[in-house]
Amino acid sequence: MPRNDLFLRALRNEPVERFPVWLMRQAGRYMPEYRKLRALKPSFLDLCKDPELAARITLLPLELLGVDALILFSDILVPLEAIGVKLTFAEGEGPKLFWDGKLSSLKPFDPKETGFVYETIRRVKELQDELPVIGFAGAPFTLASYMIEGGSSREFLKTKRFMWERPKEFKRLMDLLTEVVLAYLSEQVKAGADALQIFDSWSLYLSVEDYEELVYPFVNYLTAELKERFPETPVIYFFRGSAAFLEAAADLRADALSVDWSVSLPEAMRLYDKVFQGNLEPSVLYSTHEVIKEKTLSLLKSVPRRTGFVFNLGHGLAPDMEFEKVKYLVELVKGFRPG
Amino acid sequence: MPRNDLFLRALRNEPVERFPVWLMRQAGRYMPEYRKLRALKPSFLDLCKDPELAARITLLPLELLGVDALILFSDILVPLEAIGVKLTFAEGEGPKLFWDGKLSSLKPFDPKETGFVYETIRRVKELQDELPVIGFAGAPFTLASYMIEGGSSREFLKTKRFMWERPKEFKRLMDLLTEVVLAYLSEQVKAGADALQIFDSWSLYLSVEDYEELVYPFVNYLTAELKERFPETPVIYFFRGSAAFLEAAADLRADALSVDWSVSLPEAMRLYDKVFQGNLEPSVLYSTHEVIKEKTLSLLKSVPRRTGFVFNLGHGLAPDMEFEKVKYLVELVKGFRPG
Repeated sequence: MPRNDLFLRALRNEPVERFPVWLMRQAGRYMPEYRKLRALKPSFLDLCKDPELAARITLLPLELLGVDALILFSDILVPLEAIGVKLTFAEGEGPKLFWDGKLSSLKPFDPKETGFVYETIRRVKELQDELPVIGFAGAPFTLASYMIEGGSSREFLKTKRFMWERPKEFKRLMDLLTEVVLAYLSEQVKAGADALQIFDSWSLYLSVEDYEELVYPFVNYLTAELKERFPETPVIYFFRGSAAFLEAAADLRADALSVDWSVSLPEAMRLYDKVFQGNLEPSVLYSTHEVIKEKTLSLLKSVPRRTGFVFNLGHGLAPDMEFEKVKYLVELVKGFRPG
Repeated sequence: MPRNDLFLRALRNEPVERFPVWLMRQAGRYMPEYRKLRALKPSFLDLCKDPELAARITLLPLELLGVDALILFSDILVPLEAIGVKLTFAEGEGPKLFWDGKLSSLKPFDPKETGFVYETIRRVKELQDELPVIGFAGAPFTLASYMIEGGSSREFLKTKRFMWERPKEFKRLMDLLTEVVLAYLSEQVKAGADALQIFDSWSLYLSVEDYEELVYPFVNYLTAELKERFPETPVIYFFRGSAAFLEAAADLRADALSVDWSVSLPEAMRLYDKVFQGNLEPSVLYSTHEVIKEKTLSLLKSVPRRTGFVFNLGHGLAPDMEFEKVKYLVELVKGFRPG
């Protein structure tokens, strides 16, 4: 058990002295120390594959930010390489993926091929016993959409046409990715991950009907299976477009829902018996200290609970955010006493 | 009363033989006949200011699509020019707005300066008595964000910082724009508009808290005042990010809510005693006839009502959509019998 188990207690609805805080992409480009470590490797993917460096990056927010949880430094696309998707990260461009759209071109997932990820988790656990470590994976839909689009997208039109025009193949792809994520996250737990987060970053672009028919069933199976295998390991489901899908997501076996700023936290907490994580709008961090303080305290005061809540952003930190303001945000949360 | 009053009856919850249909941006670049008329004027703004041409464009979907309502051909930014905002539409680039951010630089709105808009409505009414004519305006927040950003945006960061860092000025700007929209829409009713639609296209980017505090009160005043002045004229409120703001919007005095695909229509209709308009995902029109048919009929069948519903998209038509598919969509809706 990590010395600071505030995060795990909040996820289990046990009493806490204050609300725990961590931030999505807390070890990232906005942080000067990250940029120094990043410069040691020519490619981002090489960084993810070097357990020593990845562990050092994972650990940065422990000393520098004083957060209550560490999240594995990696990328959601890493396991796709192991099933035969070609993957490159060109500087300043975002990821490019190359897949011919045929299920027959994909190879079975061998969890050993992403051994560097579990090794990173083991090292982070060995190097400190202060904070819990969060393992993570992309949700099946978000991975599928990256594969189909070949990268980021604004409209996700290729993904939608694939879903609508080739629904059987799409479901087979989702089945396959669900098994990949399940095996991948299982190995992360075996390596020592104290909690898991599943990122459905691109659900935002879906209609509520498509989400419920083509996305939800796979996340449902995934979270149920993870809880069967690892009943003691909290599972957090992060999904964008949260207001649209909250009612469905509240039925998942996930312990916690990580929501964006489309959701009113106090209302969601009154309606659903789930732990919630979120949901400060990240762009508040581009504003003044005064606004950051006002928005953060207003969110914290609105929480109608004494536990069952983890403070986070509604989405990840951006590279052009100021480190000092991020640290200020963490301190504000840590200074707040619920109740 | 127009000969085809299906749209108005649906908005009043009166019996209808079938659900009425019209489409946002139904007279637009996807239509070859529009592009011909567009070519007659060097600038888009000149087109809006020419009542004869604007009326001809407004009328195109009557014959070509066979819809059940016509919407005034204009742009939501038109009234901003009348309060001193400089406005240009460069080809293929979207609008550019020039405002120095000072309330003192804006001049009082004289509705006469947008007389060409009311004249367009009068002409459309004179030229046909088949269909009702929808007048429209941007909602105060959407207009404010265009003024503050100086054009379209992906993040609306300037607008948010203005809102958060200069809240009093922001509210004064919203007050001012609310009065502009109220006067502008009132003149449209006097010119013969049979219904009004208010477009809050950029609400999508707001947190639910900011929407409720800084956007909702102004739309609430606007819709209440319009209903006081023109109790017989149906008012439709279109807002993106609909799932997040539906609960608030359902309290508005607007007769109908036009929602995007983040909302489950049957559920919204069971929860709220409002007329609903929407909400097919526009990108369905990039897919095959088979998918268009399946998605459209599935939406129509899901409506748990026999009236109080107007078929539309969840957002506007795009320039690169195929006219023939748009027409196919309209025919599908017209062929469907509720109940």
